[in-house]
Amino acid sequence: MQAELLTIGSELLNGAIVNTNASVVARSLAELGIPCRRQVAVEDVRPRILAALGESLRRCSVLLITGGLGPTFDDCTMEAIAAATGRPLVYHPPIAACIRRFYRRHHRQLQRAALRQAYLPQGGVALANPIGTAPGLWLALPRQLVIALPGVPREMRAMMVRSVLPRLRRRPGAATIATRTLRTSGIVELAIETLLHRLRLPAELQIGLYPHLRLVDVRLTAVTRSAAASRRLLRHAERRLRRVLGAHVYGVDGDTLAGTVGARLLKHRTTLAVAESCTGGLVMDQLTNVSGSSRYLRGGVVAYHNALKQGLLGVPDAVLQRFGAVSASTAKAMAAGVRRAAGAGLGLSITGIAGPTGGRATKPVGLVYLGLADGRRTHTQRHQFFGDREAIKAQAAQAALDWLRCCLR
Amino acid sequence: MQAELLTIGSELLNGAIVNTNASVVARSLAELGIPCRRQVAVEDVRPRILAALGESLRRCSVLLITGGLGPTFDDCTMEAIAAATGRPLVYHPPIAACIRRFYRRHHRQLQRAALRQAYLPQGGVALANPIGTAPGLWLALPRQLVIALPGVPREMRAMMVRSVLPRLRRRPGAATIATRTLRTSGIVELAIETLLHRLRLPAELQIGLYPHLRLVDVRLTAVTRSAAASRRLLRHAERRLRRVLGAHVYGVDGDTLAGTVGARLLKHRTTLAVAESCTGGLVMDQLTNVSGSSRYLRGGVVAYHNALKQGLLGVPDAVLQRFGAVSASTAKAMAAGVRRAAGAGLGLSITGIAGPTGGRATKPVGLVYLGLADGRRTHTQRHQFFGDREAIKAQAAQAALDWLRCCLR
Repeated sequence: MQAELLTIGSELLNGAIVNTNASVVARSLAELGIPCRRQVAVEDVRPRILAALGESLRRCSVLLITGGLGPTFDDCTMEAIAAATGRPLVYHPPIAACIRRFYRRHHRQLQRAALRQAYLPQGGVALANPIGTAPGLWLALPRQLVIALPGVPREMRAMMVRSVLPRLRRRPGAATIATRTLRTSGIVELAIETLLHRLRLPAELQIGLYPHLRLVDVRLTAVTRSAAASRRLLRHAERRLRRVLGAHVYGVDGDTLAGTVGARLLKHRTTLAVAESCTGGLVMDQLTNVSGSSRYLRGGVVAYHNALKQGLLGVPDAVLQRFGAVSASTAKAMAAGVRRAAGAGLGLSITGIAGPTGGRATKPVGLVYLGLADGRRTHTQRHQFFGDREAIKAQAAQAALDWLRCCLR
Repeated sequence: MQAELLTIGSELLNGAIVNTNASVVARSLAELGIPCRRQVAVEDVRPRILAALGESLRRCSVLLITGGLGPTFDDCTMEAIAAATGRPLVYHPPIAACIRRFYRRHHRQLQRAALRQAYLPQGGVALANPIGTAPGLWLALPRQLVIALPGVPREMRAMMVRSVLPRLRRRPGAATIATRTLRTSGIVELAIETLLHRLRLPAELQIGLYPHLRLVDVRLTAVTRSAAASRRLLRHAERRLRRVLGAHVYGVDGDTLAGTVGARLLKHRTTLAVAESCTGGLVMDQLTNVSGSSRYLRGGVVAYHNALKQGLLGVPDAVLQRFGAVSASTAKAMAAGVRRAAGAGLGLSITGIAGPTGGRATKPVGLVYLGLADGRRTHTQRHQFFGDREAIKAQAAQAALDWLRCCLR
């Protein structure tokens, strides 16, 4: 089985909304082992829908359509399906009864146009809509399966889960796809690719690399005939990959760098305080997105102005005068200062130039110093990042959290 | 001119990521009066790209492609364009020099594969990538225009704005659509809709409402025969809308709430310090995303643990004991404390329960107190937000910045 997805809606074509339905449908199909080969979006215009429908039906065995099932006259998906498959529209009294009940329940006057939704192409089965009035369509043709769902994301998702996926699961021949993402830090995309090349992982395994600044996700997808075989393939590949990627792997699937750092702080039974300058609160924001972070996070200081570096963190005036706010010495004093001020086990600091202004030849935009104090010693790191203000902030935050993660191994 | 968009990436077809590029491109083209008739997404697989390319080239006059321009061997968009248009790939030494410079600047070893990005189909012009190494392509064929951009959203957006839109604007027959976005805060979508209904704005004007938690964007799109007429229509509509929306409008187009707050702080020649508890650094992060924010922002304290509320902000132990950390009294003491500690003109504080744990019947998850101290008086606000941890943090940050904006009128 190979699927295509046709999403219908002028609001997609003019960019007014993001097509979230496409990824929801694709992910649902992938989990059943039905690869989605093409996604097409067209406007609510009958000839355009008809053309796209005809092309897709020639290529795929499962065609999933969203949108254009509403009661208004620009909704013409059912007519287009009827025309493309050469089947007349048939009136379904039970659907009409459902629509009437819906209007009564919502104390609204029945609009005549609403009953347009009671027509389905001949041979089609209505899929119940638990939220709105537009029913979906399940139309099994001799060689293809056509499924139509409303475009409203909540209705689409509910009907996908309640009606479509259970029916698809019962069809024979569904392969199974399983995925696993290894999340890495401190190693670039091309270096991972070179390692992968040497590993020669089995061909049934698709590998995708998705970089986010200094982090790269390695997504493994196994497509086999049984769920057990897919899982076995993934487990085996993950073991081999972990052997070459080593400590670069900071988590899997939905893990975050901040979450991994938090788990390690808990394991070491220690607490953290953060002094941020150029990242301006971003590191603390990421750390506090983790539920339960109050167990290991004392808090932090955003020492933007030097007065705060001195007053709240105790950075000596002499250090700021001699080395400047962006220096290893200041990073050191900030880390030790925030650790002391917050009564934490560890103090982490970030000071740098996020730009676009404020850079000089000796201290260019993107220069960032990190400091880490544990009460005995204070270490520092120097980085040079590139990009715009937000990219430099984001890279500095990733580098700081990843350094902390490595120190907590 | 009629456009189609081809987005390339296996991660789109398996639903791993949402195709945000499609809406960004479609909106950009719509603003130039170039309707996007079809959006197609296919995997990074050469024959699939080739098939989709051929079909699109037969239908449209502008084909915009995103994705598959990276250095790795699964990136084959340029080869596919070369094959579909019958033009050989040509090596461009200036692009190779750019790539070498990029690697040198980032202190990274040049990977041979990276130089694959120096090849473009014959007759193509490279579009500079200000962020990464993959150049874009502008290929003017006798009857079509083919544009290719990287799939990384930040790179795609930057190149769209810097290279593609200015070039498209210079082509004849474009630009009859103009847009203006009024960004509002403190008024819900349905209330805006009711106001709009009463205004009866002209029919040539399309209006879209886009809510982001507590903020709603009102997007006006004018479609007329001349750019001047579109601009006139927009100016007139904006004036009428501003009259009914009043101070709810915090900015237009790309303005942010943090940017507006910053501009007003500058105008009032005052400075700000922030004490955050439940928002965990998010408010400071947003304020410091504004370039030049060091002129009015002293810094802040993320007082997650009560010890920091006491030690760094001077919140009296008695207040914490009697009223708790999430209370108007604590918000008051935090705002006054951070203002004093940072030597700022204004002190803003946020304390609440971001959840999902930590709520009680009297203090449920989502309860947030804000404090604002100006040296003479300290005000507080109480809010009840809903949603998950990140949604509650985001709403609290929006409410805090918007309150500050209103106080600085």
